Order: sequence, then C-alpha cells, then structure tokens
Amino acid sequence: MATMTKPFAGIDLGGTNMQIGVVSHDLKLLAPAKRKTKSEDGLDAIIARIVSGVQEACTTAAIKVSDLGGIGIGAPGAVDPYRGIVLEAVNLRWKDVPLAEILEKRLKVPVIVDNDVNVAVLGENALGAGQQSANILGVWVGTGVGGGLILNGKLFYGHFLSAGEIGHTILFPNNPKGNRSVEHNCSRTTVVDRIVRLIKSGQKSSLGDEIAGDYDNVKSRTVAKHYLADDKLVREVVDNAADLLGVAVANAVTLLSLERVVVGGGLTEAIGKPFVDRIHKAAKELVFPEACRKFDIVASKLEDNAGVFGAAMLAIERVREAKK
Amino acid sequence: MATMTKPFAGIDLGGTNMQIGVVSHDLKLLAPAKRKTKSEDGLDAIIARIVSGVQEACTTAAIKVSDLGGIGIGAPGAVDPYRGIVLEAVNLRWKDVPLAEILEKRLKVPVIVDNDVNVAVLGENALGAGQQSANILGVWVGTGVGGGLILNGKLFYGHFLSAGEIGHTILFPNNPKGNRSVEHNCSRTTVVDRIVRLIKSGQKSSLGDEIAGDYDNVKSRTVAKHYLADDKLVREVVDNAADLLGVAVANAVTLLSLERVVVGGGLTEAIGKPFVDRIHKAAKELVFPEACRKFDIVASKLEDNAGVFGAAMLAIERVREAKK
Repeated sequence: MATMTKPFAGIDLGGTNMQIGVVSHDLKLLAPAKRKTKSEDGLDAIIARIVSGVQEACTTAAIKVSDLGGIGIGAPGAVDPYRGIVLEAVNLRWKDVPLAEILEKRLKVPVIVDNDVNVAVLGENALGAGQQSANILGVWVGTGVGGGLILNGKLFYGHFLSAGEIGHTILFPNNPKGNRSVEHNCSRTTVVDRIVRLIKSGQKSSLGDEIAGDYDNVKSRTVAKHYLADDKLVREVVDNAADLLGVAVANAVTLLSLERVVVGGGLTEAIGKPFVDRIHKAAKELVFPEACRKFDIVASKLEDNAGVFGAAMLAIERVREAKK
Repeated sequence: MATMTKPFAGIDLGGTNMQIGVVSHDLKLLAPAKRKTKSEDGLDAIIARIVSGVQEACTTAAIKVSDLGGIGIGAPGAVDPYRGIVLEAVNLRWKDVPLAEILEKRLKVPVIVDNDVNVAVLGENALGAGQQSANILGVWVGTGVGGGLILNGKLFYGHFLSAGEIGHTILFPNNPKGNRSVEHNCSRTTVVDRIVRLIKSGQKSSLGDEIAGDYDNVKSRTVAKHYLADDKLVREVVDNAADLLGVAVANAVTLLSLERVVVGGGLTEAIGKPFVDRIHKAAKELVFPEACRKFDIVASKLEDNAGVFGAAMLAIERVREAKK
C-alpha cells in the first residue's frame, strides 16, 4: 500500500480504559476496539492489551497490522513526544517508559506518543468543535484539569515539553501549596469535595438527598443532574469553578491572542453547554484588548473519539514529515 | 550593493524620544541618531523627524538612504505587523496610521513596523541578555507593563495580533476594572502612586524626605535610589509589585513551558538585578512542572539600543523572507 493512502491506528490510553481505532488516511473510522487499562497489572500487561486491541481493530478493518502507516498514542501524563517516552503518568503508575520503542518492537510499525489532552485537542480542532483554528487552547476538566495548545496550526510543546498545563497555573498565590492552582480549585475532584463538605456540614441539597450518605461515589453525571435541576448548593460550587476557569482562560487568551478555546473532560461532557457558557461569560469580561472578546469557546464534540482521531492524525503527520 | 550585505536602519519610536540606528548586515551599529518625538506636534511633524533622523544616521554612516536594505520600526502600542499599520498608540495620539506606507513613500525603501516591546525582545534575544532562546517572554515595566513573545524562535502574534500582553492579564478578578490587571498593580505609575499615597498618609520614608512635597515628578531612578538604600516603605511597595509580576511570569512559564524571561523597562533598568531577582524568586515557587523551575530570568542588557537592533533585525528577516 502506498504510504499516502495507508490506514493508521489511534489510541487514547486512559487510566481506566483504552480506546483504539483504525482510521483511514482521510480520517474515517474503519474499526474501533476497546480494552480495560488495569494499570495495577503492570506495564507488560498494559502493553499486551494495547497489542491485542490494535490486532483486533485491524482484523475488524480487514487489514494486517503491517498495513498500518503508523500508530499514534495519547497517554495521560508528561510525555517526551520527540523520543516517544512517557516521562510520568501517575494514573498508569509509569515513570520513564519508552512506549514508542516497546510498541515498535512488538508491532513493527512507527509509533508516535504524545500527551492525551494534546491529541484530543488536535482531534477536536480537525474534526470536532467547529472549524479549524490556528491558535487554540484545550482545557479538559475531569479528575484534574489538563490542557493542550495548538499555536500557528501545530501542537506547541515549549522548552520543557510541558506547554498547555493551564490546570497548574496559579489563581491564589497566597493559598497553601495544595490549594492555589486552577486544578486545585476547578477539577471535578474539587467540585465534588466541596459539595460533599457542604452537605456534611448540614446544608440542604437535592444531590445530598439522592446520595443519602454515600459520599464516595459522586460522579460527574450526578453533579450534572443536580446542576441542571438548579440545585442551589451544586450551582454555587460549579459556577464558582467555572468562573475561576474563566479567569485562567481569559489570561491565556490575552497572553496568546487565541481565537478559540475548546473545553472537554468528564465534568464538561456531563453538564454541557451551560458549563461552557459560564466559563465563556467570565472570560469575556476579562480579556484584553477589545479584539480578544471575539474569541470563541466551544464544548468538545468528539468526546471519547477525540483522542483516537487526534492520535491517528498526529501519527499521519509525523510519519509523513519523517519521510520528507 | 547586494541585498545580503546591505545595511538596515532600526528605529525605536517612543512617546518621548526616538532612537535611530544604521546597522550593518551582521548587526554592528554603524551610526546612531536621536530625535525628540513631540507627539503633540502631530503625525506630519513626527514623520518629518523620523525621515531627518534616518537621513542623519545614513550620512554619518557614509551611505545614502537608498543603500538601506530596509527600515524596521518599533512603535508603542497595538500594531498590525502584516500591514504595517499602527492601530492605536495612545502615547503618540495615533489611531490607524499606515506608518509603513507613509515612510516607504518618503524614503523609497521597504519599511517593517512592529510593537516596541516585540522588537526589544527580539533585540535582547539576539544580542543582549545571554544566549538565544527559542521560547522567551519579554516583560517591560515602565509607565505601563508591556510584553512580547518569541515562540519557536519567532515573534508570536496570535489571532488578534496582540499576543504577549502580559500586563493585561488579570491578578485580581474581583477588583474594580481599573485595578485588577498586572499593569494596574505592577507598573512604575502604580508603584509611584502607592508610595506617594503612603507618604501623604503620614508614613515615614527617605523618598518622602527627599522629594519634600513635590509629588508629581517621582522618577524610576528616585524609586530605585531609595529601594537600594533599603527604605522600608519603598521596599514594601516595590517588592509587592515584583511578587505580583512573579505570579504572572510563573503562569506564563507554566502555560508555555518557557526557558527564559527577559525583564526590561524604566523601573527595571533603574533598580536592576535586585528587582529581577525578586521576580524570579516569586515565580520559581509557583511554576509547574518541576522542570520549569530551570527557567531563566534576566534583566535586559541593551537598554535603549534593544529596540534599534531588534527593529533592524526584524526588517532584515522580513525583507529576506519577502525576496525568497
């Protein structure tokens, strides 16, 4: 098969699940596959699941693994995309894992590794929320707050390869160390903690009535249900998080003169447009200059598939660049 | 003269003075010239002073204006570098001035226009503070707080052409509109206002003793003198501004994974290293990840000449690109 028309595989490697897809050279999903990650089983077991998932998706797509032009993977954590190494992924219990090299040995095709939010933003920008933008920030609100940056049409890594980490920018410099960043104040984890604390302190909430003391399993969709039903306590906590995200988004838009921000992640997907609109409203009041108020903010559309498409796209781009 | 060896002119167009320099193709200053800006005389008068300044510098360098490969200008305010238009420059009382076109008609050589801090950062990066960096933020602390960004080795403009405006990022979202940004809290103007207000309220300060009621002419160098002499009141106000600049710098370093920040402008030049070190210390505590703590922060070295060199460099780069 000629390189330009070869299919590629994209993998979104999450802490809980991995989504795998074989994607045609013109970005149509040919076949999906899914595996549990089960990080507690260790590196070799995860690698075996990736390999078998890729093989399954290829079989479904009626191709051989050797027909793939390459494989792209988005991994949750710090990644060196140039050397294909996962530097640190807390959810996977990985440190300095040469993922590209390991998988290339097993699968005999080129493997490209990047951060999961980076590849999701790439996927959203190309296929998801609206038209392509040259300058775009992705903000993923879930367990933590992740970010990814496209500048001048390309993923931007910066000197220490950590660019885009908006979740780790500081909102309250005088707060204690564990309570000063965007992530500390706006993640789903924080939102749930605050709601639970207020309910435990005796405040009324329809969410409190529903969970009836089962404080350990409050999911994004539970928060969303009571937010959308206008529960006062849940609204106050979530709106406060959205307003603070708005400050961080505004500062990124001002500093980089961004035309678009895409917001994704579990909490965003569960609540949807009202959450994104609240962030937008907060940010619009704070950006500079007047021109920046025209920036656009959208909810991610591809959801689970953003990572698969973005990873495949990145692999297509890098493999073509390497052959130039 | 062959294009590659032609000299260029660089102009740093300030609200008070303009610095002009004829620079060789390998970035040696061949001849300087200086003019008052006198913005109150209007556009035509300023243009006439630019033209005569360029002519004088060329005469001193023993060349004709027509020998120049091009002219670069840094203007204080919002600039459209692609069309060579000064969109808005409050200090010059200009709005939508097609500066490149006007000067090309008068001088018959290509003219490139950019923001003054952008060209200063470019000059500093190439010739000034330390080795060249691919990713660098410039923060200019004077009347206001200006900024400029180099990413992947090139000036970064963003979608609305306003990238780098760190002075307009928000520190205190809940403050009133005129008191929430970095500029509102860290400029020389604010520092002086605060010092004066505290002295007027009866607090002791050696600066207060020196100015003896003449509150309207407190310059950067007066502030610097009493800061360096360890006056408690001046130190508190200036250190607070530096600490807040540190927060904004940290967030920019985290978001962009920057390797270097260069700090310039009137207040920085007057106080020097202690001011820059204070910003560095504050920022280092707040950046993420650990790797980002290796970022470097330096005081501008070229001072007045940064703009002249940067403007000439930009013109060299753009004219060569256009000929490709």
